[in-house]
Amino acid sequence: MNYFSSDFKLGILGGGQLGKMMLYSTRKFDITTHVMDASDEAPCKIACNHFTLGDLMDFDAVYNFGKHVDLLTFEIENVNVDALEKLEKEGIKVYPSSKTLRTIQNKATQKLFYRDHRIPTSDFTRFAYISEIEDAIENGGLEFPFVWKASQFGYDGNGVKIVRSLCDLEGLPKGECIAEDLVPFKNELAVIVARNQQGEVKTYPVVEMEFHPEANQVEYVICPARISNHVAEKARTVAMNVSKAFNHVGLLAVEMFQTENDEILVNEVAPRPHNSGHQTIEASYTSQFEQHIRAILNLPLGKTDSKVGGIMVNLVGDEAYTGPVVYKNIETIMELEGVTPHIYGKKQTRPFRKMGHVTIVNEDINEARQIAEVVKNTIKVISE
Amino acid sequence: MNYFSSDFKLGILGGGQLGKMMLYSTRKFDITTHVMDASDEAPCKIACNHFTLGDLMDFDAVYNFGKHVDLLTFEIENVNVDALEKLEKEGIKVYPSSKTLRTIQNKATQKLFYRDHRIPTSDFTRFAYISEIEDAIENGGLEFPFVWKASQFGYDGNGVKIVRSLCDLEGLPKGECIAEDLVPFKNELAVIVARNQQGEVKTYPVVEMEFHPEANQVEYVICPARISNHVAEKARTVAMNVSKAFNHVGLLAVEMFQTENDEILVNEVAPRPHNSGHQTIEASYTSQFEQHIRAILNLPLGKTDSKVGGIMVNLVGDEAYTGPVVYKNIETIMELEGVTPHIYGKKQTRPFRKMGHVTIVNEDINEARQIAEVVKNTIKVISE
Repeated sequence: MNYFSSDFKLGILGGGQLGKMMLYSTRKFDITTHVMDASDEAPCKIACNHFTLGDLMDFDAVYNFGKHVDLLTFEIENVNVDALEKLEKEGIKVYPSSKTLRTIQNKATQKLFYRDHRIPTSDFTRFAYISEIEDAIENGGLEFPFVWKASQFGYDGNGVKIVRSLCDLEGLPKGECIAEDLVPFKNELAVIVARNQQGEVKTYPVVEMEFHPEANQVEYVICPARISNHVAEKARTVAMNVSKAFNHVGLLAVEMFQTENDEILVNEVAPRPHNSGHQTIEASYTSQFEQHIRAILNLPLGKTDSKVGGIMVNLVGDEAYTGPVVYKNIETIMELEGVTPHIYGKKQTRPFRKMGHVTIVNEDINEARQIAEVVKNTIKVISE
Repeated sequence: MNYFSSDFKLGILGGGQLGKMMLYSTRKFDITTHVMDASDEAPCKIACNHFTLGDLMDFDAVYNFGKHVDLLTFEIENVNVDALEKLEKEGIKVYPSSKTLRTIQNKATQKLFYRDHRIPTSDFTRFAYISEIEDAIENGGLEFPFVWKASQFGYDGNGVKIVRSLCDLEGLPKGECIAEDLVPFKNELAVIVARNQQGEVKTYPVVEMEFHPEANQVEYVICPARISNHVAEKARTVAMNVSKAFNHVGLLAVEMFQTENDEILVNEVAPRPHNSGHQTIEASYTSQFEQHIRAILNLPLGKTDSKVGGIMVNLVGDEAYTGPVVYKNIETIMELEGVTPHIYGKKQTRPFRKMGHVTIVNEDINEARQIAEVVKNTIKVISE
């Protein structure tokens, strides 16, 4: 299949900011793109060749969209996986595969997959209903504290809760969930892995994620992670093994914990470009977005080394504001060396809404971290 | 003026590949863009917010387009400059200015400007008609060889000719032109300079241009140029002075010769992002396209240092082919480290047509040069 031919059509399910950044690469390669999203204001509407309005969870919408392209990918996990499976049977290439997505979409099956493939992850128990958790507590099969996770549809801090007592279970969704061991950890890490159809696989340098204490969102994404080479290699090896275990095609973001004993435990994965990889645009030889395109089109993978250290700061709506967005002091931060903002294009801000990010690159990661803090304390996402 | 507000409209005259690459930056910053081009297949049609079909040399078309935006720039010199001037008088910001463009559009006035501002450039004489050249030869006022240049509308090797005898004048356009001294040189260099409204000015590292002997097109653009620091500093200073002399706002590409005596002579300038700056996308802290946007919006300029060495190879149509384009061996070159192609999106190839470019980045510029040669000898722009 000649991907650079104008007859070739790449379909992308989801038209959000991840898709928007994928389109930087498809525009560069002049690859014809069809995008579907439920919103008429989807960022991808501009910069794709053909935009379709449609519900990504609707079987018919996804199936009909996929029938009109040669190869299909997605920038979000919440898509109708049955439609993907049918498309695969009918000869449309879908990468990553419906099988992989089905496994990942459900946190319980995801954890079971790791267990089955001997991928290190925290111990856990699966429950069909949250009421079973209470039973398990009573009969001593489960102890506080633990991490409750909804099996499906959690995103960015929702659907995950540390449970220290029965009260903490109140108000949580009643359905399928898992209870994971609450493992003390030194660092939250992520490794992005790319793998193409031929099985060529490359990992990116490890990123370190510093979290906001309350909102459970990442504050700084730091690459390279400030950890030992030994731990970094371990993390990259684990990530590679996860990708291989899935026979993954495309990008896979593997989020992990570095325990107090320097063990690596997989937390969860995302089968697509990921927030932790945004700094690759400026810092790496190959951006994660270009890499995903290379991987799914079975092109040779690009070099994953970093050119320079990179830190990403998320731009989230200030907690005190809702309304038409204003990026206060954005000009000021653009004076700082190696700093560039990415504005996703959402018109309305609200507390903690992901509105963009700022990347800070520097030969010295510690200097980058200092500048990143200035950025974080200077730019405000508000409304006037 | 709040450029990040959705009320703000940036107008770009010209929708070709330079504009296409400017749109990478405007999409990143979510800046609303209006683009005008005469072709319905202009690369910018995708990725701008609003596209207008129109003749860039037509007064009314340019004027009416400009009235609907807040700030206007251009990616090509061949635009109606009278319309720009009128727009400026009516309060539309135009950067670079109509005055600068008018001076640059005509090679004779451009050379006179250098002379008036004591910018080093080769000696020259201006002629209203080519017949005057013959008179000058006869009366001893002009000697062979010299470089004939049409005052207007030369592009990429056309409108320039080395004249060694009267025969060489045959078939050339009859109108206004200049005859320049043919100065022996060691290197052809270029420096890209950015300057914003506040007068903040930054130069990029010097690039060295290796030319194809016959077609008079650049083969390799190498950054940093393999010259001494002393000459590099001189070149950057000259470039900065040119930008200041114009009170330039935006990007200016200054093409120069390094003479046998290591003097710097300005050849010509382009008041926009330039082919010699494409490697900045992957190699520099700030791509020339982002820099142009920062400059014209009076945002702080970004760091112009290189992260890594960068070499650009132009992808031009093979001389033996005309027809629907095929990029033969493009997958093969993508295996090479640090190599990424840019495909402009023209559907038809013909001999020497600029179809794209390939950038090779590497910490070591000599290794980059070797890889670039492999790229050049491997990828072919043909038709099947």
